[in-house]
Amino acid sequence: MAGRCIAALVILSVLVMAAASLAEEGMWPLDKLDKTMYKRMKAMGLELSSKDIYDGKGGGIAYAIVQLGGGTASFVSPKGLMFTNHHVAFTALQRVSTAEQNYIEEGFLAEGYEDEIPAPGYRAYVLLSIKDVTKKVFGAVKDEMSDLERYNAIEMRSKEIVEECEENRDVECRVASFYDGMEYKLFTYFVVKDIRIVYAPMRSIGNYGGDIDNWMWPRHTGDFSFLRAYVAPDGSSAEYADENIPYVPSVFLHISSKGVKKNDFTMVIGYPGQTMRYRSSNSIGHHQNFNYPRRIKMFRELLNIFNRAAEADESVAIKVASFDAMLNNAMKNYEGMLEGFEKAGLLDRKLAEEKEFTAWLESNGEMKKKYDDVLPSIKAQYDDYKMRREKNMITGFTGFGCLMIRASSMIYRWCLEKEKEDIEREPGYQERDVPRLKQGLKILQLSYDRETDKKVLSYFMHRALELPENQRIEAFDDMMSEAPGSSDSDKIDAIIEELYSGTKLESAEERLRMFDLSRKELLEEGDPFIEFAMKLREEIKVLEEKDKGFGGALNKLRPKLIEAYAKWKGGALYPDANGTMRLTYGVVKGYSPKDAVNYSYITNLSGVVEKHTGEEPFDCPEEILELYEARDFGGYVDAVTGDVPVDFLSTCDITGGNSGSPILNARGEVIGSAFDGNYESISADYLFNERLTRDINVDVRYALFVMDKVSGAQHLLDELTIH
Amino acid sequence: MAGRCIAALVILSVLVMAAASLAEEGMWPLDKLDKTMYKRMKAMGLELSSKDIYDGKGGGIAYAIVQLGGGTASFVSPKGLMFTNHHVAFTALQRVSTAEQNYIEEGFLAEGYEDEIPAPGYRAYVLLSIKDVTKKVFGAVKDEMSDLERYNAIEMRSKEIVEECEENRDVECRVASFYDGMEYKLFTYFVVKDIRIVYAPMRSIGNYGGDIDNWMWPRHTGDFSFLRAYVAPDGSSAEYADENIPYVPSVFLHISSKGVKKNDFTMVIGYPGQTMRYRSSNSIGHHQNFNYPRRIKMFRELLNIFNRAAEADESVAIKVASFDAMLNNAMKNYEGMLEGFEKAGLLDRKLAEEKEFTAWLESNGEMKKKYDDVLPSIKAQYDDYKMRREKNMITGFTGFGCLMIRASSMIYRWCLEKEKEDIEREPGYQERDVPRLKQGLKILQLSYDRETDKKVLSYFMHRALELPENQRIEAFDDMMSEAPGSSDSDKIDAIIEELYSGTKLESAEERLRMFDLSRKELLEEGDPFIEFAMKLREEIKVLEEKDKGFGGALNKLRPKLIEAYAKWKGGALYPDANGTMRLTYGVVKGYSPKDAVNYSYITNLSGVVEKHTGEEPFDCPEEILELYEARDFGGYVDAVTGDVPVDFLSTCDITGGNSGSPILNARGEVIGSAFDGNYESISADYLFNERLTRDINVDVRYALFVMDKVSGAQHLLDELTIH
Repeated sequence: MAGRCIAALVILSVLVMAAASLAEEGMWPLDKLDKTMYKRMKAMGLELSSKDIYDGKGGGIAYAIVQLGGGTASFVSPKGLMFTNHHVAFTALQRVSTAEQNYIEEGFLAEGYEDEIPAPGYRAYVLLSIKDVTKKVFGAVKDEMSDLERYNAIEMRSKEIVEECEENRDVECRVASFYDGMEYKLFTYFVVKDIRIVYAPMRSIGNYGGDIDNWMWPRHTGDFSFLRAYVAPDGSSAEYADENIPYVPSVFLHISSKGVKKNDFTMVIGYPGQTMRYRSSNSIGHHQNFNYPRRIKMFRELLNIFNRAAEADESVAIKVASFDAMLNNAMKNYEGMLEGFEKAGLLDRKLAEEKEFTAWLESNGEMKKKYDDVLPSIKAQYDDYKMRREKNMITGFTGFGCLMIRASSMIYRWCLEKEKEDIEREPGYQERDVPRLKQGLKILQLSYDRETDKKVLSYFMHRALELPENQRIEAFDDMMSEAPGSSDSDKIDAIIEELYSGTKLESAEERLRMFDLSRKELLEEGDPFIEFAMKLREEIKVLEEKDKGFGGALNKLRPKLIEAYAKWKGGALYPDANGTMRLTYGVVKGYSPKDAVNYSYITNLSGVVEKHTGEEPFDCPEEILELYEARDFGGYVDAVTGDVPVDFLSTCDITGGNSGSPILNARGEVIGSAFDGNYESISADYLFNERLTRDINVDVRYALFVMDKVSGAQHLLDELTIH
Repeated sequence: MAGRCIAALVILSVLVMAAASLAEEGMWPLDKLDKTMYKRMKAMGLELSSKDIYDGKGGGIAYAIVQLGGGTASFVSPKGLMFTNHHVAFTALQRVSTAEQNYIEEGFLAEGYEDEIPAPGYRAYVLLSIKDVTKKVFGAVKDEMSDLERYNAIEMRSKEIVEECEENRDVECRVASFYDGMEYKLFTYFVVKDIRIVYAPMRSIGNYGGDIDNWMWPRHTGDFSFLRAYVAPDGSSAEYADENIPYVPSVFLHISSKGVKKNDFTMVIGYPGQTMRYRSSNSIGHHQNFNYPRRIKMFRELLNIFNRAAEADESVAIKVASFDAMLNNAMKNYEGMLEGFEKAGLLDRKLAEEKEFTAWLESNGEMKKKYDDVLPSIKAQYDDYKMRREKNMITGFTGFGCLMIRASSMIYRWCLEKEKEDIEREPGYQERDVPRLKQGLKILQLSYDRETDKKVLSYFMHRALELPENQRIEAFDDMMSEAPGSSDSDKIDAIIEELYSGTKLESAEERLRMFDLSRKELLEEGDPFIEFAMKLREEIKVLEEKDKGFGGALNKLRPKLIEAYAKWKGGALYPDANGTMRLTYGVVKGYSPKDAVNYSYITNLSGVVEKHTGEEPFDCPEEILELYEARDFGGYVDAVTGDVPVDFLSTCDITGGNSGSPILNARGEVIGSAFDGNYESISADYLFNERLTRDINVDVRYALFVMDKVSGAQHLLDELTIH
């Protein structure tokens, strides 16, 4: 599911109410796992104590699990070796590949530490502690505040808490909101900034089935890779340096080669990005009728641009591969989401539920007094949002898809923010963020192709022409009115020509130089993209403030709704995913997608061979075909199927961000790596369906088989602790 | 599979060698079932004696099974009521439907005998006896004969046998060749010529899933219908007449409402059309590289013509529906065949087998002497065939697809044949065939639409322009050289305009009048289509004689090959299907089409509802939706699934022509009606794969449920004997 990308794309967070009726449903915060939960897990087979999993003081297997590259990874050796998905390492592989040395296509194996390749831009977040700061945060809020003021007060207090937490320490702190603003917690991480690529199988194993099989079962993808964490010789966090040494984690996981069978207990610990299981009908309606259809259309059109460029030139293909994969993945996600909404009749069910809820309020004077205005108030917020949603979408995605717009907006924004006190600055533009911003400006080079970037900008400008009267982008309209040319297309071409021929931002060096300039100096440069960014900024600021008001209002309303629903229905609820560490547990289990069709819980090497057509993405490597032909399975054989296992299903509740999470057995040993959900699970972000929702994991035995028999990675196998 | 059509389409019969290694494989002639077979069947669960099934003297359930409309049906009441597929009755429904009264769409239920609607052109063949005539046939063959002479001698002797058999009797006789010419048998049938439509469910039940689900599993089609056989008051065979009375069969089948479960014994008795399990690599190569790909392309292009015409006008849609369904079905068949060939690597396997066979010959002096020339001789025949195959295909399909060409060719051919002694005439053009030929000329009206027919002819003329130099259709080239117009298209339009504006053949009355004319009288009519047919006839005759020589040669070579293979491999072989009655037995069983996917043996009403989209072909009737919603199953519930059963799978070995065959339980009771094979079974015509080949049957309980709860056909249920 390449989940890391999805989380990044969800710009507007928006609404499902589901009772945590089934034990398997739920992404539980580690500090929320109580005795009842452990009892249930033990009944299902868990052999560990609660302290073996998470003791809150740096002990327990949970501490071996890190957030990495928007996904998850786990330490599997005392020398900082991390096990994750191939698709989590994909952007790194893309950034270091060239047409001559294509690590995506051919895979990579470092023969020793000295061969490991730096993964530019990658960071691993190692959890140190979790602390409840709800009271502290709410201490900044006053009843009489407007929505925007409330939003800003919470943001400011959060920054203060983070600043205090990070002061004089080699850590990164984050305040996360739970239950849509009901609780706040402070997370402290040690950040590993020197990540290196150790091993990745060739694309035809690591991404076997490609976009066709993405979100699909049966699946035959060897979606795994290994990276290593490095720190300064003194153990402190440091950017890449020759002298750096492997990081020694406090805990690392063992591997089980014993395999899985039906109904085995499983758990996944990782960093799910976002779920929306407590949202209202307004949110569902927004996504179903506007957000997803629009994004699907836009992404399809952008993919056409990228694909044409990639077909014409292999070096461009490498540059756009990562963005291309992300768009494809997100598009399929949205399509599955829409299909899931419709199949489940989600909107109708939400509306019916809200009707029942309202009837309950009517029948209960006290509750009515307290919660009567919640749903109408949420609706009013969405009605207001409609008045800017078209403009929001175009401006948001232009600054995301066009790299020159992205760079110029970032540089200009920084020159504004740097004039403020650090604590006053926008999150993401504080002193602590500077290295990451700079790194972003630098590595942008690896994805940049001028002609493609021009086409992307041209695409968005044409879309901007179609905006309704009350949502025009004035900066753009002004440029159009002054541009030479008789047709809109000619004018857009002329604007783009002027922007790209006049800019210095195509050079990484120049971008970094300009980043350090003051506003005055920057404007004196006269760079046309910076000038465009400046004009755009005024309009985006207005949108942002409105969105903050929207956020502030919902931040007050949603917890109230969850509170009311909890009272209405009774029982404890788990909080939606928010990019913090969660545990989900379940069992190994197949499913029936439709009448008379039953999917087994596991796939086999014979299925890899069966899908082989010789053409990407079903171009199984010759090595695998030969091993299969010779039945040379090297002992990595499943006892039930008599074949080499490839991928398996479990009922664990995961989402984007969980990619690369270890899936563990009853003893906490790694039995695989979670890398996807089935198609039916896409809409589980809104509504978990126990009958159909499954996570897809690469079986660790397949990883061992490929490392051993295909790649000859014996030294890597030796580094693991395999039971 | 709408099998009846497939058999009709296989113009050139062409090759697989498979050992009858598995008891479930094989379509056994009833008179070939020996003790070993019965023993095996009993071991699998059969509770009947051999005489209960077929005693050779008119006794046994086999005698309740008839050939009907290119498919199969079975008597299920003492009053001539026949149970068959909806798609076997489809052409009849189409012929009697109008835009106002559309029986295809709405279904039909006769409230009593008097409401039953004649099914024009339908005939039921009731088996009376089977007799071995091999010696008699070979008595006409002499060693020194050429291939063509041999072909003609066998054909002539067969006609003599038929003539003798039919003399002064109310029967129809046919000589059928077994093992590609190794044995000959005489079949005597009583022909019921007055068939009437009794009941057909609406299209959205009888053809639920349509072309999308055709050849597919899981399936949810209620593919069944009831017709009735009528004879003259004295019991003799008679065309439709008011005074006719229901036919009293010697045997009729009982119905079981007890249902099926996994591994239950099943048998299917019916009229499979053609299999080619003993063919050589030359035949496979011909189909894989020429025949199927060409037909697929041609049928797709013809379907485009029909579909455009049907979309524009509903009355045209009804006229072309039957032909359209047949093309669609055949196209899917060919596609499945090609996919099956490739998946199974059939050509390579055949070549390898022949290599082994040749090596065996080399090692065995006596065998080498006897069989050394067989494979090379077959190859030589195919090489020769290549020199006319393009022309063969165009002329063959033009006379098939364009109804005016079809009618004029038939009329002209008949005026030639009638000049000969009856016994000298081409099979199909003898005195005995006259009523059928006339009927064909009459009912052609029901499918005729002038504009569509013109477009079809234009299509074939354009294809004829592309023929290679050595395979030109001279009659057509001559017309082109004389036609006005500057471009080929203009010329073709002019030719077509002249043909259709000048012909009288569009009137059924005129066609029947001309049919009775002598050659001289016919030519004096000056009908442009008749003139065209006359010119074409000369060229087609040359092709036909060459094909007969090809047939004569293969008729000698193939039995020799089968004989040699039998000696090489040892063991008994069943003969390929040839349109005569066969029995196949097996068990109720699902299958796994690919890794991690398992198909259950049965589908359910919940699956019908699941597939419902409201749009054809998945437009489940409101009545069914309501019954399902209300769980109003009326007792037609499967004990295992707790749902109303719809279709089920068994391992019985069937092919086109079996459509409508009863599938029977261990006691010989009807448990369903065979109507299709799964996609993986398409290539089973060449190679039976026990793991994947399944037949698809409508569960008789679904038929009863629909008749009872949807159609209220209580009087029809009362006519059945249900256990």
